[in-house]
Amino acid sequence: MQIQVCLSPALLPMYDLAGKTVVVTDVLRATSTMVAALEIGVSNIIPVASRAEASAFIGKEGFLVAGERDGIKVEGFDLGNSPLGLLAHREALQGNTLVMTTTNGTKALKESAGADHIIIGALNNASAVAKAVLPFEKDILVVCAGWKNRVNLEDTLFAGALNELLKNDVSIYGDAAIMSQQLFVAHQHNLFEAIKNATHYKRLKSHGIEDDIKHCMTMDSSDVVPIQIEESIHSMNA
Amino acid sequence: MQIQVCLSPALLPMYDLAGKTVVVTDVLRATSTMVAALEIGVSNIIPVASRAEASAFIGKEGFLVAGERDGIKVEGFDLGNSPLGLLAHREALQGNTLVMTTTNGTKALKESAGADHIIIGALNNASAVAKAVLPFEKDILVVCAGWKNRVNLEDTLFAGALNELLKNDVSIYGDAAIMSQQLFVAHQHNLFEAIKNATHYKRLKSHGIEDDIKHCMTMDSSDVVPIQIEESIHSMNA
Repeated sequence: MQIQVCLSPALLPMYDLAGKTVVVTDVLRATSTMVAALEIGVSNIIPVASRAEASAFIGKEGFLVAGERDGIKVEGFDLGNSPLGLLAHREALQGNTLVMTTTNGTKALKESAGADHIIIGALNNASAVAKAVLPFEKDILVVCAGWKNRVNLEDTLFAGALNELLKNDVSIYGDAAIMSQQLFVAHQHNLFEAIKNATHYKRLKSHGIEDDIKHCMTMDSSDVVPIQIEESIHSMNA
Repeated sequence: MQIQVCLSPALLPMYDLAGKTVVVTDVLRATSTMVAALEIGVSNIIPVASRAEASAFIGKEGFLVAGERDGIKVEGFDLGNSPLGLLAHREALQGNTLVMTTTNGTKALKESAGADHIIIGALNNASAVAKAVLPFEKDILVVCAGWKNRVNLEDTLFAGALNELLKNDVSIYGDAAIMSQQLFVAHQHNLFEAIKNATHYKRLKSHGIEDDIKHCMTMDSSDVVPIQIEESIHSMNA
């Protein structure tokens, strides 16, 4: 078994998804929000690409709609793309379906169709994901959502974390995997500090969500492993 | 002035080349070979995309033809893509034109057309490049040639070196620039050791060119700064 890393959805055409377990990550904040939602107890998550598709679910019994564009909650939606925001609406969410659209995360999920398994990873559930992917016995590809196809530090750090966690079980293949692992090892004891210089941190900080970012940069706060099956994301733990 | 890093030619569409100084790098080995060729005293270098275009120059008075595919010298060409190989043919090269085609380097050069200035960078001439780009007073974009559009460690290390060398003069913009700088700082005192785990090192080592790789991973062995003007590469120092 091998683990590879794709640093941007724009690089996905270089990888064959068939026969692989893909782990999609968008640490700030789509996949961190998905982990939080399933941790809270939403029944499932439906990722959709466009605001229009998400809007169709507004006010529908049993559905809540979450989404952001450029880091800001979409007007009219129930929720933004904030793990801590979801925690504040715990009771409204439990047992319901969360419909989500985000700038990069849901796009990366759509483009990963074709993989044998699609797992949702974040720093929050990195160790749980590492344990969950091994029994599939397939080569692993981490797909970093990036920011509008640009490489970003936070997703690279998650990719590095997964490489570091799996290094004794699978072989690390390719320079993107090697580099992400080296960056994670360098920053693992201070992930929040590491991200303070990153571009997306500055973009989001101007929206006043520093606590949310701190939450997203925390390793292993959750054991939830989300898996996408057809059009819907469920907890593997449930 | 800003410096940004594009980790693969496949990510180039995300960047606007107009108004920029682009520094193209393909450390193993196209751009290192170009630096060596101009250091030796070739009059200029003509990079061509295909073997067929290069072949048209075979046996022509005043021209020598160099090129590789997948790390191996093209049959019938005068030279491969080896800086040390060129040094062994110093007298044959001096004053002549070198026609070059390589797997990734010449492709990255072609795709960088549209920039205001195109400079050729390698670890061998990193400090000289850092000094040469400042007077242009344009934003800088490092274009890593990668390996068949995949990100690689050696080109990322050069990008990081240039960021580190310029950090007091220009602002480092974007996570790819930040990450490459961090990787360079971590490995700067042992670049050859760093590359021993990299994919392309293993690929090339099987061709028995460890000394060539050691040469390419050496910082600042040359003051030559190659610049592409129209279809030809010259030394800025000449």
